[in-house]
Amino acid sequence: MEGKRIKANYLIETAFPLEKAAETMAGEQSCGTFVRTPGETQELKENHSARVESITELNYEGEPSLPGAKFPKENGKVRRGLVALSWPLENIGFHLPNLMATVAGNLFELGAFSGLKLLDFDLPDDFSQKYTGPKFGIDGTRKLTQVENRPIIGTIIKPSVGLTPEATAQQTKTLIEAGLDFLKDDELMGDAPHSPFEKRADAVMEVINCHAQKTGKKAMFAFNISGGIDEMKRRHDYVLEKGGTCVMVSINWVGISGLLKLNEFTQLPIHGHRNGWGMFTRSPILGMEFQAYQKLWRLAGVDHLHTNGIRNKFCETDESVIKSIQACLSEFIGTKNPMPVLSSGQWAGQTVDTYHAIKSTDVMYVCGGGIVAHPDGIGAGVKSLMQGWEAAINGIDLETYARDHSELKTALKFYGNLS
Amino acid sequence: MEGKRIKANYLIETAFPLEKAAETMAGEQSCGTFVRTPGETQELKENHSARVESITELNYEGEPSLPGAKFPKENGKVRRGLVALSWPLENIGFHLPNLMATVAGNLFELGAFSGLKLLDFDLPDDFSQKYTGPKFGIDGTRKLTQVENRPIIGTIIKPSVGLTPEATAQQTKTLIEAGLDFLKDDELMGDAPHSPFEKRADAVMEVINCHAQKTGKKAMFAFNISGGIDEMKRRHDYVLEKGGTCVMVSINWVGISGLLKLNEFTQLPIHGHRNGWGMFTRSPILGMEFQAYQKLWRLAGVDHLHTNGIRNKFCETDESVIKSIQACLSEFIGTKNPMPVLSSGQWAGQTVDTYHAIKSTDVMYVCGGGIVAHPDGIGAGVKSLMQGWEAAINGIDLETYARDHSELKTALKFYGNLS
Repeated sequence: MEGKRIKANYLIETAFPLEKAAETMAGEQSCGTFVRTPGETQELKENHSARVESITELNYEGEPSLPGAKFPKENGKVRRGLVALSWPLENIGFHLPNLMATVAGNLFELGAFSGLKLLDFDLPDDFSQKYTGPKFGIDGTRKLTQVENRPIIGTIIKPSVGLTPEATAQQTKTLIEAGLDFLKDDELMGDAPHSPFEKRADAVMEVINCHAQKTGKKAMFAFNISGGIDEMKRRHDYVLEKGGTCVMVSINWVGISGLLKLNEFTQLPIHGHRNGWGMFTRSPILGMEFQAYQKLWRLAGVDHLHTNGIRNKFCETDESVIKSIQACLSEFIGTKNPMPVLSSGQWAGQTVDTYHAIKSTDVMYVCGGGIVAHPDGIGAGVKSLMQGWEAAINGIDLETYARDHSELKTALKFYGNLS
Repeated sequence: MEGKRIKANYLIETAFPLEKAAETMAGEQSCGTFVRTPGETQELKENHSARVESITELNYEGEPSLPGAKFPKENGKVRRGLVALSWPLENIGFHLPNLMATVAGNLFELGAFSGLKLLDFDLPDDFSQKYTGPKFGIDGTRKLTQVENRPIIGTIIKPSVGLTPEATAQQTKTLIEAGLDFLKDDELMGDAPHSPFEKRADAVMEVINCHAQKTGKKAMFAFNISGGIDEMKRRHDYVLEKGGTCVMVSINWVGISGLLKLNEFTQLPIHGHRNGWGMFTRSPILGMEFQAYQKLWRLAGVDHLHTNGIRNKFCETDESVIKSIQACLSEFIGTKNPMPVLSSGQWAGQTVDTYHAIKSTDVMYVCGGGIVAHPDGIGAGVKSLMQGWEAAINGIDLETYARDHSELKTALKFYGNLS
């Protein structure tokens, strides 16, 4: 691994000169300390220091964004900049938790900054010899769902909590008979007393298997197996045994080492739910960007990763959503691409704009009310979505395509008036 | 579990009336959706809805703190408040990842808020039947270090990266001969090519075992075993076999499920390093408070937990540090207390004020430069810390106690002039 380096990009805010601030980051995250220690030889520094690769000053006029910074008393103008650092791979080896301790770690708390965000990181290709990434990714998911040349259309079981296994199965039946490719547990639903995991899996898979036998189409159901390692193993095995084709985890709460273990034994795609992600990213000047986040979870093995959709009900901008989808669809040290999962307030109305922005159908398009609230029923809801994507792929605008596609027409009228 | 409830407290910022905003939180995190769905019966709602327990409006005059909120066009005054919610335990059962998906989860991204922070949560006592918490905690750590009635005094191997196993062992020798109770790997150091885990453990434990044989005092060394589940198991077993008494993990990067697994098999205390924590908490209006964080990791099994120390080099206030230490030392559903680890810019100078605030010596007091940079050497550095804590425990101020304690006297003069 000699000579190979790990790279990371940051947005920083500081009242120190940017060069000095960047050196503080590099020192703190490699072999520097606040006093020179006896072991800190010149040779050690040359071999192990982090390097400041570039600094770009940005326009910023304002107060410190976050409290607690310890700035110099004089010359207190707060400035922002982009900083690129690099580290010898030799400092870490192939170790994901140590990588994160290095490129993120204590940086966010340093007194020299009133804001610091990890934007992206890059690794030498051979990192993927150990961290092989998703086992299924887009291709594997398409094979299991038998959906080609269009997005995988899905929905979420609702209400999120409270349904019995039987009620969940009943809803599943309605939804798959309406033509849906994909269903999922809500992230709130796991193994609750009113819906024990095995009972829910039994009831749901009976319906799915029965439908598959009749029609040849097996819907993918992402069962939320989040839990301890042994619990996840047991639930994964149970889903597999029952003929299920997907497991879901709340990645932030299961964590990297848990995901790595799951990725080791899984025979099913891992649906990565990012609930809690807002904590990491909602501040413009703290935490991390999705570009870095998706690389982390890709290394850990997620096959599907939530990205939000455009014109969503959350606080994320369309620009950010599109960047996230593109990140999942981009190359990263030879790993498979996780399939982006678009959800939150999605209906047929966003299909053309989404396709226009991403030029790809390699997404899971997950709608709740956008399907089930269609005035002509769930079947019509599913059709309206298929028609929306047909219009998108064929470069036809929605209004034109709706002229001879009645489900889409009704959707445009109904949902269009809501928004 | 009938009738039992999970509780959580939040700081929120919104332009909606606080009652409406709180109802949005409760709905999103239990059985509500943005449209009423067929399965949402009255009975289901009564059994599974989250409940708004209390709302307290705070004084706030200002703009929205975070971007992206979707506020009503009229009546746009931004307000802040404290909100308490509760959920039936029945919604979740005893499941830590689902608990976090419920009390945190998507809340941070909701368009109805320009800020939302999880302050604390509370659980029914029987949660600890499954999540038994730390195996060692304070008492177990004291037993292994044979340190009673005063803090465990420690330091960190520096430089963080770059030292060979032999150089690490050499430094360990110097430090334990100077009288230190506790040493640790830096969080940047794991299993790097220049310091492979097993070689470092070999070299360090030889020195520690040799010293223990001679003196009867075995220093505790927290080896950073952060990694995949099998890697952690292998390294844990290795440390145990070599006679080591502690393992360390970067808790945010190993994650909850990984920690739970480690806690299952560990025969050594788990030193919980919180690097990355700044991401979760540095914004005053996003993420979570340490009070909630320590409960989470306590359930997952950490025996030692970093809290920062007062007058630290990071951006955290003394008030926040003290609250964090007190949180670790407080009761929580019958689990053992994790030992708070105070570090960052610590030296003898903070001992009296720390003790005055926490009225306890049940802490690990970890100093780098505060020990090794003492003008009379590392031994004198350790003595100055012991003397500082003696003064604190005996209610004597540092200046007075320093009159006939020369190491403390020198420390006050040297470090006092630095700050």
